[in-house]
Amino acid sequence: MGKVDPYEVSGDIDYDKLIKQFGVSKITPSLLKKLGTDNLMIRRGGIYAHRDLNKILSGDFAIVSGRGPSSKMHLGHLAMYKIVSDIQKQTGCFVFIPFSDDEKLLVKGEDYDSVRKASVENAKDILALGFDPKKTKIVFDLAHMNQDIYNLAIRASSKINISTVKAVMGFKDSKNIGSFFYPAMQAAHILYPTFKYGVPSLVLIGVDQDPFVRMTRDIASKLNLKKPGDLISKFLPGLSGSGKMSSSDERSAIYTTDSPKDVESKFKRAFSGGRETLEEHRKYGGNPEIDASYLYLKYLFEDDEKKLKQIYEDYKSGKMLTGELKKYAISKANKFLENHQSSRKKIKIEDYLI
Amino acid sequence: MGKVDPYEVSGDIDYDKLIKQFGVSKITPSLLKKLGTDNLMIRRGGIYAHRDLNKILSGDFAIVSGRGPSSKMHLGHLAMYKIVSDIQKQTGCFVFIPFSDDEKLLVKGEDYDSVRKASVENAKDILALGFDPKKTKIVFDLAHMNQDIYNLAIRASSKINISTVKAVMGFKDSKNIGSFFYPAMQAAHILYPTFKYGVPSLVLIGVDQDPFVRMTRDIASKLNLKKPGDLISKFLPGLSGSGKMSSSDERSAIYTTDSPKDVESKFKRAFSGGRETLEEHRKYGGNPEIDASYLYLKYLFEDDEKKLKQIYEDYKSGKMLTGELKKYAISKANKFLENHQSSRKKIKIEDYLI
Repeated sequence: MGKVDPYEVSGDIDYDKLIKQFGVSKITPSLLKKLGTDNLMIRRGGIYAHRDLNKILSGDFAIVSGRGPSSKMHLGHLAMYKIVSDIQKQTGCFVFIPFSDDEKLLVKGEDYDSVRKASVENAKDILALGFDPKKTKIVFDLAHMNQDIYNLAIRASSKINISTVKAVMGFKDSKNIGSFFYPAMQAAHILYPTFKYGVPSLVLIGVDQDPFVRMTRDIASKLNLKKPGDLISKFLPGLSGSGKMSSSDERSAIYTTDSPKDVESKFKRAFSGGRETLEEHRKYGGNPEIDASYLYLKYLFEDDEKKLKQIYEDYKSGKMLTGELKKYAISKANKFLENHQSSRKKIKIEDYLI
Repeated sequence: MGKVDPYEVSGDIDYDKLIKQFGVSKITPSLLKKLGTDNLMIRRGGIYAHRDLNKILSGDFAIVSGRGPSSKMHLGHLAMYKIVSDIQKQTGCFVFIPFSDDEKLLVKGEDYDSVRKASVENAKDILALGFDPKKTKIVFDLAHMNQDIYNLAIRASSKINISTVKAVMGFKDSKNIGSFFYPAMQAAHILYPTFKYGVPSLVLIGVDQDPFVRMTRDIASKLNLKKPGDLISKFLPGLSGSGKMSSSDERSAIYTTDSPKDVESKFKRAFSGGRETLEEHRKYGGNPEIDASYLYLKYLFEDDEKKLKQIYEDYKSGKMLTGELKKYAISKANKFLENHQSSRKKIKIEDYLI
């Protein structure tokens, strides 16, 4: 199994093992149905675990889905936020999207100007997926620190000691005090809707972020606030075939700003589940389960169940060739990005600021 | 010598030893003259040490004088802020007064509502001393966190590690992360005028706060900001005769809200430099240097040099009795408080908010 901790995810991932390792609950189809959306990630197994989902869905709730700004967003990121956007469309829940520009300075040592630029660009990408401006708020910590959030972060920080952060994050005394403080700010992000509106928060995360949620649940108890729950999503695989799609690995990621030509050449180079030779492929068939093009169709592009099933079967039997599968994925990806880039231009950040 | 560290000052204080211990510079009359004010603390030896004062007075500067809100303010506090107000009157410098309500929650474990109330009351007391609303800003961290200050605190926090805070503050791993983070917020308070207006900050403090200033000077270098300097003031003695006036010791302090009767009974019980009996006093004389009533006249109430000198000589010779000295101090204190309480009512906090 690959490595999964709050700062690194690599290698192949055994989701059942992760559920045990992190002590979360396996998701059930009936629970997912309660979310009321036919989002592709949700209906096709992209969400595999949770904490307290049943309890949270029993009344009003908010979704918190933070973003550590990076220079470019890729399709793996969008797939996560599309889940949030689709749940909001069905349930009308409040959505809060905090941008942890502060963490980028503290833990990663990045400079303010580039983080600021990345935050604004990332926000446009996320909001382009379609969020209700009346029910969706964003905050950029460094540029728009909000008094409720600071207040909550200070209260949270009074309930976490250095030993706990060392245990959860693996930090040492040589680490800066801001990095140690940041988990309190993250807790404040998660608890903001609860503090402000009294509704519990549902956090959509990869399992690597679960230790933060667990810590925040402890803090919530100590502050007499409702505990947050989480929805735990699979990582969309990188095009190179191992680990999740990564912003820092140019070849593994399709960026939201990629041109049709970029997309074409990236998919053409992408990891496939096809056989070494055409002959072998026709004879033994390919493996869609590990094929990057297929997985993107499954989780992000192909709405039509019948069509997806047909592709799965044809690829598995060897009737469909890797080149054909890639060609179809490229056309779908480019259509998706064309729409996305057009929606992106219409976004006014100010409409969503806290 | 008494104990002096950032969280406790007690016992008698040897100021020359403190200068050595903290590595600050002894003040000179010519330096003090540059401040241009005839404030009583300044002209009568209440300021005894500094860092970089000469350098800072060579151009525009700001004064930063923070306040850890407490339920009541006493005359010792006011004497400090009167120095700031008087320097502003002469130099027109920008004054910034941050209220560290966050620290009270974190380090002292106080609750928000009482800290909030104390902050507002304390602000009225301070502002009643006369600050130019155009050149004076206050901030209450928890109630009005400002994005520049948060931004600066995060930058500062990236330059301080856990080991440094342990060394300066004596904190252990069992302490909450907010207490460890707070020195970054304090640095942000000090550096705010420098960050915002490019002028160096002069911090008016008791020597117990000097370790924070020293840490902030290091941080300023690392952030390419001008280093702050400090003006180090004596602590006004408590009425009980040992240590500084303390808010938590009812009998040692004259509060800004005390009635004329409170003031009278407190001075009557106060520590004096007089002799045990009237006879002895007439014969050997008293000691004004350690007499609480005399020291308050010297540093806060008696503007007239001749008059003060006369009192000094008469008390020392035994011509003036302790009862007479106290009576005079009571009348001066009550006049001061009457003015103060009347000015206090006219203060509108909003005129000064950052």
